[in-house]
Amino acid sequence: MGNQFGKLFSITTYGESHGGGIGVVIDGCPPLLPITLEEIQHDLDRRRPGQSDLTTQRDETDAVHIIAGVFEGKTLGTPISLGVRNQDAKSEDYDDLKDVLRPGHADFTTMEKYGIRDHRGGGRASARETIGRVAAGAIARKLLAHAENAEVLAWVSQVGKISADVDVGEITLETVEANPTRCPDPKAAKQIEKAIEQARDAKDSLGGVIQCRVKGIPAGLGEPVFDKLDAELAKALLSIPAAKGMEVGSGFAGAEMTGSQHNDAFKNEDGKIATETNRSGGIQGGISNGEDILVTVAFKPTSTIGIEQQTVDTSGTETTLAAKGRHDPCVLPRAVAVVEAMVCLVLADHLLRQEATKVLQ
Amino acid sequence: MGNQFGKLFSITTYGESHGGGIGVVIDGCPPLLPITLEEIQHDLDRRRPGQSDLTTQRDETDAVHIIAGVFEGKTLGTPISLGVRNQDAKSEDYDDLKDVLRPGHADFTTMEKYGIRDHRGGGRASARETIGRVAAGAIARKLLAHAENAEVLAWVSQVGKISADVDVGEITLETVEANPTRCPDPKAAKQIEKAIEQARDAKDSLGGVIQCRVKGIPAGLGEPVFDKLDAELAKALLSIPAAKGMEVGSGFAGAEMTGSQHNDAFKNEDGKIATETNRSGGIQGGISNGEDILVTVAFKPTSTIGIEQQTVDTSGTETTLAAKGRHDPCVLPRAVAVVEAMVCLVLADHLLRQEATKVLQ
Amino acid sequence: MGNQFGKLFSITTYGESHGGGIGVVIDGCPPLLPITLEEIQHDLDRRRPGQSDLTTQRDETDAVHIIAGVFEGKTLGTPISLGVRNQDAKSEDYDDLKDVLRPGHADFTTMEKYGIRDHRGGGRASARETIGRVAAGAIARKLLAHAENAEVLAWVSQVGKISADVDVGEITLETVEANPTRCPDPKAAKQIEKAIEQARDAKDSLGGVIQCRVKGIPAGLGEPVFDKLDAELAKALLSIPAAKGMEVGSGFAGAEMTGSQHNDAFKNEDGKIATETNRSGGIQGGISNGEDILVTVAFKPTSTIGIEQQTVDTSGTETTLAAKGRHDPCVLPRAVAVVEAMVCLVLADHLLRQEATKVLQ
Amino acid sequence: MGNQFGKLFSITTYGESHGGGIGVVIDGCPPLLPITLEEIQHDLDRRRPGQSDLTTQRDETDAVHIIAGVFEGKTLGTPISLGVRNQDAKSEDYDDLKDVLRPGHADFTTMEKYGIRDHRGGGRASARETIGRVAAGAIARKLLAHAENAEVLAWVSQVGKISADVDVGEITLETVEANPTRCPDPKAAKQIEKAIEQARDAKDSLGGVIQCRVKGIPAGLGEPVFDKLDAELAKALLSIPAAKGMEVGSGFAGAEMTGSQHNDAFKNEDGKIATETNRSGGIQGGISNGEDILVTVAFKPTSTIGIEQQTVDTSGTETTLAAKGRHDPCVLPRAVAVVEAMVCLVLADHLLRQEATKVLQ
Repeated sequence: MGNQFGKLFSITTYGESHGGGIGVVIDGCPPLLPITLEEIQHDLDRRRPGQSDLTTQRDETDAVHIIAGVFEGKTLGTPISLGVRNQDAKSEDYDDLKDVLRPGHADFTTMEKYGIRDHRGGGRASARETIGRVAAGAIARKLLAHAENAEVLAWVSQVGKISADVDVGEITLETVEANPTRCPDPKAAKQIEKAIEQARDAKDSLGGVIQCRVKGIPAGLGEPVFDKLDAELAKALLSIPAAKGMEVGSGFAGAEMTGSQHNDAFKNEDGKIATETNRSGGIQGGISNGEDILVTVAFKPTSTIGIEQQTVDTSGTETTLAAKGRHDPCVLPRAVAVVEAMVCLVLADHLLRQEATKVLQ
Repeated sequence: MGNQFGKLFSITTYGESHGGGIGVVIDGCPPLLPITLEEIQHDLDRRRPGQSDLTTQRDETDAVHIIAGVFEGKTLGTPISLGVRNQDAKSEDYDDLKDVLRPGHADFTTMEKYGIRDHRGGGRASARETIGRVAAGAIARKLLAHAENAEVLAWVSQVGKISADVDVGEITLETVEANPTRCPDPKAAKQIEKAIEQARDAKDSLGGVIQCRVKGIPAGLGEPVFDKLDAELAKALLSIPAAKGMEVGSGFAGAEMTGSQHNDAFKNEDGKIATETNRSGGIQGGISNGEDILVTVAFKPTSTIGIEQQTVDTSGTETTLAAKGRHDPCVLPRAVAVVEAMVCLVLADHLLRQEATKVLQ
Repeated sequence: MGNQFGKLFSITTYGESHGGGIGVVIDGCPPLLPITLEEIQHDLDRRRPGQSDLTTQRDETDAVHIIAGVFEGKTLGTPISLGVRNQDAKSEDYDDLKDVLRPGHADFTTMEKYGIRDHRGGGRASARETIGRVAAGAIARKLLAHAENAEVLAWVSQVGKISADVDVGEITLETVEANPTRCPDPKAAKQIEKAIEQARDAKDSLGGVIQCRVKGIPAGLGEPVFDKLDAELAKALLSIPAAKGMEVGSGFAGAEMTGSQHNDAFKNEDGKIATETNRSGGIQGGISNGEDILVTVAFKPTSTIGIEQQTVDTSGTETTLAAKGRHDPCVLPRAVAVVEAMVCLVLADHLLRQEATKVLQ
Repeated sequence: MGNQFGKLFSITTYGESHGGGIGVVIDGCPPLLPITLEEIQHDLDRRRPGQSDLTTQRDETDAVHIIAGVFEGKTLGTPISLGVRNQDAKSEDYDDLKDVLRPGHADFTTMEKYGIRDHRGGGRASARETIGRVAAGAIARKLLAHAENAEVLAWVSQVGKISADVDVGEITLETVEANPTRCPDPKAAKQIEKAIEQARDAKDSLGGVIQCRVKGIPAGLGEPVFDKLDAELAKALLSIPAAKGMEVGSGFAGAEMTGSQHNDAFKNEDGKIATETNRSGGIQGGISNGEDILVTVAFKPTSTIGIEQQTVDTSGTETTLAAKGRHDPCVLPRAVAVVEAMVCLVLADHLLRQEATKVLQ
């Protein structure tokens, strides 16, 4: 249960880390959207392992296939089925882990919930599950660009205790992709690169923070009560493996301000109502206000580390574990693509929902 | 759209601030749950205005009626309908605001979305909307207590820059209710009380942070991909008016730690698998692990302030606004009941979902 | 569970036959729809008891209240809450039935499902539950009329073995309302009236068939696989109490034809593609084709009869039962309003869904 | 939109007739259900083309692959992904049909809805779409058998004007599979076989009726208002291509009876409450009562015929059409597997829903 996301632009993902493959079915993508295999693969390549020294060396090309729903370069309005095969799954690496519960992982809770689990690579709790999200997100991104000329861009703003010093409005895809850390501040990026290498050498891992900015979303998206745009983004972001917190606009810093400091004053900007500041993060009362949308998400450090840890096995006997295998010392650079995908999926869904609201306007 | 929450324990709320009333229909509450009017009223009384000098003086008793779904003190398994009348709505206070867009409020986005709005008291974007949530939350709370002996408890942990210094495991309902701030640290509570009074006198407002702890939830609740328990809590919490951020367990602080610092080691505690620490906040891989669940939510300061602010009217003409009427200088003490309600609703829903998963176990 | 209907134009009904009242909340009605209390009451009056000698003499005015969602004569886009009080509930009539399982009723299955039931008047399984449907259907009907100039009209086409002989395309609201049977064939209507009176005097009951025709729905509504327009209508119609079968277009008669007899040939009618015949009933491949939509629904005879019947009590002891109280010898004339409401609800929902599909067209 | 079915045992199907393949993802199947590839293939083989002279000669083995969700012979509780490749798609057969709207097909309505269509083989409106349903249905069937020892069996009860004369309670899988018509009355089966051959030779087609009986479902499944078990079955059955009507229990015949004739008297059968007759078809008030469930579904004759028909092309110009290619003169024998699958899917979903209702019982 719970492998579906979105009400109108609705996706269902499937696939275990070491099973036959990973995929996604999109139900509700409108017809006549131009889309190419290359556009989808482009987003997957930003997520895939082995793209730099900073990531796991599991070698997966993650080549995507369009199985259904696209005809002569355009969406048909029928379900879009996208699949990726698992190739470099070294299941034998996990033989030792069959009965050990890895700290920080879902091994224990999966057993408690299901009474069965695929121990090879974390099964469904593996980060490979996010392939389906990124593939579907590429189509959602295209819909947002095609219908609204909107742009969704995320970046690494912090790793461990190293923070980027950037002007959020000025970041571009080029400054994000300029280095393997996906941190657009070159000075912080250098430090982050070094810190990740050190963590890797120390058999330890690092967490961090990703920010995402959306330009071009018109006012009116989002529903005012439970399906507030920020509430839906919160669910989307916290559903990413290892996410531990999120903020929209001012976030926790806003809690320390007074109303007179925090309120975004309205102004008339060339005949259009706009706000002087953007502490709201582009969302007021759960509905987009036409300003840039800004969300922030915190990730804990990767659970899999080579340092020996105390744990138990499935029978409850205490033991120790030092992970072997190929793992990311820091998932942040790859997670940028996943954050963007989830934001695209939420916005595409609400773009369609808003159409239904507008029927008499 | 979007006035429904929950998949199996599903609620629909309705009602504008100055309309005929506010209410909620619960579809999916299991039969045979004992519930009294008093239990529901008790939770509403913790949310209602006028309960202390620190809150708005709008005088509403918020007396709840059970219209359907309960028979001879027990739930029937049919929809439970709960309603509250609006009594002390002073709609004339809002006449001046008919054409003015209040900064920080949903006035502008509501007009952009719907092309119409009830300007009296914020309509559906008013905090009065949360009455339905709290009433339904009282029944969800009873279900959790009855089925699992679980306890959901929230408190104010920060207002402005004043933070409580408390041991999260030791807080009790008594320490929370000991003073009108609902901050269980008596020293901080004093300071917070003074700060709220000062903000009120300065015609300004304050934000803050609420934490919520859940004891007694068994391992296994939550779905591993999109409907992770923490993702659903994130949506629930960010759907509360004025919420700007949330954390589960270590949250943003976890982003600064290494894996060897952050991982919760497993141990055998009297034959039961448990964790040494609880940085996961009781949820691993989106599924509860049997430890205490801990979430944190940040609120911006109340948007309505008496200080004059720059804004525009609905025609886009720039103007200024100094709010009259009766408002909370700080919503945190009342919002404690709303946070608890939303957490109860998420957990009750997942308790029922877990039943369906367990059919062959 | 299952008290919600519709994906975008979504309703939740509540209320037991002898509880505080009956109502419905509509979530997803678009803003700016003009609607009056009288329009809603008008539909309820066609459903209400006591409107003629042919129906139950339970005296309910079924006066509806608009509690939320309508402001100055227009929908706000917020949830619309409509309620009706129970007035003439003679609960003491049901005291004898507390422990007896009435044949043909839901008493036994309700106990098996829930382990508890409100025995007074059938609780939620009472036909009074359809009040919420008809109230919501009136708003759906208005949306269809306002947005598409569409008209939904149902009539009694058969009672017992007496069938109307009518030209489906020529029936009007006037011919339906011309007599209390709601059968537009005056000759059959006379016979039906007599048959119902005979059944009433014999303490027995009659079943029958209702047809519903929709004019003005454009081509394109309905989803091609599971949510076919006819599939959704089938669910809607079979959810009406006492419904035992349904047909779209040719229905069971179509099963006896050959393809060359059944296929509706396409033609060009003044520049518009149309069909020569309408055996499809206005729906092809689950999608409306612009022709009149035609559905038929069969109702079993009312289960409550005064004739003595064999049954058991809740302990399983065999006994007999002869119903007292006030009951319809034939529900068909009143059920016309319910059939129309369900058809309106399905079409309004798909009208909104189609908007989301059209975003790039 | 609308390619998902089921609330808890939820499936999403994908795939065009002449695209890369057809498949289904099941979200919500409980863990620990034993299932083999052979069990799924067995159901697909009863649906596949080319199994006898009576069906289309398109040669598809419809070999199914399990891509995810099953591990060491048991379900994991994760999404189950099943796929079938398209092999014998002769897309060139459809080149002539690119601009012609086939009478009785979804060509016209698909263009009106989407503004684009895959003209090769009907795209998503092709009966090949039902492969995903049958594959998922095989797993639902296994769940019903494993959890409740329930058996779902359908058969052809009528083709054209030839009806089977059978005792519904006595039919077995063997009598259904005894001949290629899947009609358990040997005499009628012979006539049906001949009638189908004649229709094929006359380049025409035939409709008919399928019945489905379910044994072993306990009392209590189904929700009492909109999601009545019979309402959900109605939607499921009418969503099958070419279905034009459905009945539960007495169906349209029940409309001609009196209450005293129709009511199923309750009796005590060896300490268990049962009914003397079963005109209710095993469902009362939308909830199963423990008796055999019986549903009936009418199919129109296949739309594709070799006889020349009047039609128009996409520009609206009138033309004629005589279908080439390989088609079923009568879909009934193959549709038996689809009817069973849809019934299994509805029941499996409600089996899980009932678990959530039972949490306090």
